[in-house]
Amino acid sequence: MQVWNDYQQQHQDRFLNEMLDLLRIPSVSAKSEHKADMLKCAEAVKQNLLSSGCSKAEVMDTDGFPVVYGEKMIDPAKPTVLVYGHYDVQPPEPLELWHSGPFDPVIKDGKVFARGSADDKGQFYMHVKALETMVKTNTMETNIKFLIEGEEEIGSPNLGKFVALNKELLKADVILISDSSMLSMENPSLDTGVRGLSYIEVEVTGANRDLHSGTYGGAVANPITILAQMIASCHDENNHITIPGFYDDVAIATKEERELLNAAPYDAKEYMDELGVTALWGEKGYTTYERTGIRPTLEVNGIWGGYTGEGAKTVLPSKAFAKISARLVPNQTSEKITDILIKYFKSIAPAGVEVKASLHHGGEPYMTPIDSKGYKAASKAVEQTFGKAPIPVRGGGSIPICSILEKELGIKIVFMGFGLDNDNLHSPNEKYNLENYYKGIETIPYFHKYFAE
Amino acid sequence: MQVWNDYQQQHQDRFLNEMLDLLRIPSVSAKSEHKADMLKCAEAVKQNLLSSGCSKAEVMDTDGFPVVYGEKMIDPAKPTVLVYGHYDVQPPEPLELWHSGPFDPVIKDGKVFARGSADDKGQFYMHVKALETMVKTNTMETNIKFLIEGEEEIGSPNLGKFVALNKELLKADVILISDSSMLSMENPSLDTGVRGLSYIEVEVTGANRDLHSGTYGGAVANPITILAQMIASCHDENNHITIPGFYDDVAIATKEERELLNAAPYDAKEYMDELGVTALWGEKGYTTYERTGIRPTLEVNGIWGGYTGEGAKTVLPSKAFAKISARLVPNQTSEKITDILIKYFKSIAPAGVEVKASLHHGGEPYMTPIDSKGYKAASKAVEQTFGKAPIPVRGGGSIPICSILEKELGIKIVFMGFGLDNDNLHSPNEKYNLENYYKGIETIPYFHKYFAE
Repeated sequence: MQVWNDYQQQHQDRFLNEMLDLLRIPSVSAKSEHKADMLKCAEAVKQNLLSSGCSKAEVMDTDGFPVVYGEKMIDPAKPTVLVYGHYDVQPPEPLELWHSGPFDPVIKDGKVFARGSADDKGQFYMHVKALETMVKTNTMETNIKFLIEGEEEIGSPNLGKFVALNKELLKADVILISDSSMLSMENPSLDTGVRGLSYIEVEVTGANRDLHSGTYGGAVANPITILAQMIASCHDENNHITIPGFYDDVAIATKEERELLNAAPYDAKEYMDELGVTALWGEKGYTTYERTGIRPTLEVNGIWGGYTGEGAKTVLPSKAFAKISARLVPNQTSEKITDILIKYFKSIAPAGVEVKASLHHGGEPYMTPIDSKGYKAASKAVEQTFGKAPIPVRGGGSIPICSILEKELGIKIVFMGFGLDNDNLHSPNEKYNLENYYKGIETIPYFHKYFAE
Repeated sequence: MQVWNDYQQQHQDRFLNEMLDLLRIPSVSAKSEHKADMLKCAEAVKQNLLSSGCSKAEVMDTDGFPVVYGEKMIDPAKPTVLVYGHYDVQPPEPLELWHSGPFDPVIKDGKVFARGSADDKGQFYMHVKALETMVKTNTMETNIKFLIEGEEEIGSPNLGKFVALNKELLKADVILISDSSMLSMENPSLDTGVRGLSYIEVEVTGANRDLHSGTYGGAVANPITILAQMIASCHDENNHITIPGFYDDVAIATKEERELLNAAPYDAKEYMDELGVTALWGEKGYTTYERTGIRPTLEVNGIWGGYTGEGAKTVLPSKAFAKISARLVPNQTSEKITDILIKYFKSIAPAGVEVKASLHHGGEPYMTPIDSKGYKAASKAVEQTFGKAPIPVRGGGSIPICSILEKELGIKIVFMGFGLDNDNLHSPNEKYNLENYYKGIETIPYFHKYFAE
């Protein structure tokens, strides 16, 4: 619509600057030292909602970091869209690999570099600016509610309770989320689901203190060696996960779904070049898209133990640790897989070490139908602005709250992500292309228009 | 000798306080930030040598940290004893496990707690105070030279050259080292050798940046998983090292030597209780003393990669690292084993990751005969003050410079350590029992007396 284009053209720079201001707040939910930043960020989101057209917005308490709620109701007879997003971000470490400060956004080559630029501040903020566009041009055709939480990156431990307690407030016809990516600008896609997550931490303890590796080495179990053996035991030579029961509940994708998935454009050489590797890795018998979409995986996200400083120290450490997470697919459940993982690591502990394993957080896998009104509206909106119908694909990431949102509110989720896989999510130099940001703001009003039809 | 006892009784407190002053200097050779402390410590050692009876002492440059040399020559016709020690210490980390500051010595239950108390400041300083005892009581029967270096804990990279350039200065009849432990005060022992060392660092690189474990997990090699698999591959189910060629040059200990070694007092329950473990670990077919004495071992001294901070981060890291060291026995050589280790880790790297492996430092295993004049003098001295002949045992640790000292100077080394295995060497809460410190000062003059006979 010309009126939208005109308004967005006119306010383009401000749309960007407001997003950059949000990126400057280091809202790292995983680290307690950022508590004040989290509250500051929640307040900033609220103010932006109000100034962008919400008639009501508030910072609402939970047992953890607050939720920001906002709404613009035009007519109870019209459909209501609930936009979900999150204002918290991943920790920025390792800092030394950033080319610029993670919370000092820099624009370079048409990209904004900062933690949270794509995940998810830059993406949920497209909805705020889409709202403004529609409000200021008097073109709203749906009611809009915003649910912007602050604990997505730590597994949304308190959002389930919040949603259960606020069902009436959050009542809507569809949930719209932009917290994922598309294949490319030339090949737009819509995610039809996200994977679930089981994230645990394993602690292996040997002797009651660090020992001299000369005096005791070879006579006492080394927790690093034992932990390495445990981790190595999790995959076989085909990179199939060997943990008993792990695959029991995996819904086998149909031949049709696999064909559809593999029909999406994919160039192995380009994929490898972009990552700087000379070979790919993964479960034998599956393609890259299948490995990251329809198959569950197990990754070690962190490991540490012993002396890790400069130089050398001949220590036989007392403890070693690992952070380990599995991505889950339907019909696996986070609770069952977490239980399987914890039991597995404890059960394979050899005599002479003690193993503790505990849950960090989890989330259920989630699938959305492609014949729903919401999915169709999103597909039509993307086709409208990209000139090409989006390909339905399975997303590899996790948004733990999805299954809870659907269960509590009884409505379906539509994923309309505008990021790219190479946005460096959770990595140094996270970025979001300005083109994608503006394209998102351009596309979102069409979703509301088509959803209201 | 009564005159020694009287003098030592009279100066007991000062002997301790001087040692504590040395412990207060954080002379960590592995960390460049401690360079000024290293130089300060070298100067303090020099001043102590001069004030304790050396007629000459100086801080001598090397390409790294300086060597402190001192001497008290009484008669060229008398035998000369070269005392070797080191004023540098291991890094104190992890700091949070210390009950008191590593460089704020605390005396508790008859033990002095501080980094370097047993390794090696407290031990080499016994020789300084033994010198003082003999000088002040006019009872010297040998010439004494001191070679106190500052790079033992980083593998003595510059001492070989220093010794080669100063052969005349260091000319002696025997080298005496107190940098090891004895079985117990009730069962004194003398080490007949030390193990060699090959210490390497391994770096595994996957993708060119940290990745989101949801987007890429399962499709790209995870360097932590690969490193864990590499480490796990180093031992078989009998904890025998599987690296090709690793055992090729191991001198098989004779039945007699194994019997002698196993005749030393050993209580498995006591050993386990002291370490807080419920089972021991090690190469099948060997006893604990054999595992730490006559057999080579491979230990992971440190590992790190990915997210190791508070909370959870779903990252698939770009890199993972490990510090790995082998203890060597005759006739293994550090150069050959280092080469074998580096080649092994590179050779088992799967496609999709790049592996770098490089040497930190190494040292050769060393054995000393028990029928030498020096060993006999040490044995007699220990018997004199402990009331019991010491048991000859193989030490598990490494003093990389031993083989170089013997080669350059053409003389044998005698190990007369007064530490205990539970001194927490290289660990938090390193300690040295005051009883051992004073017993060492009491015993050392007898060594000189018997060596001169």
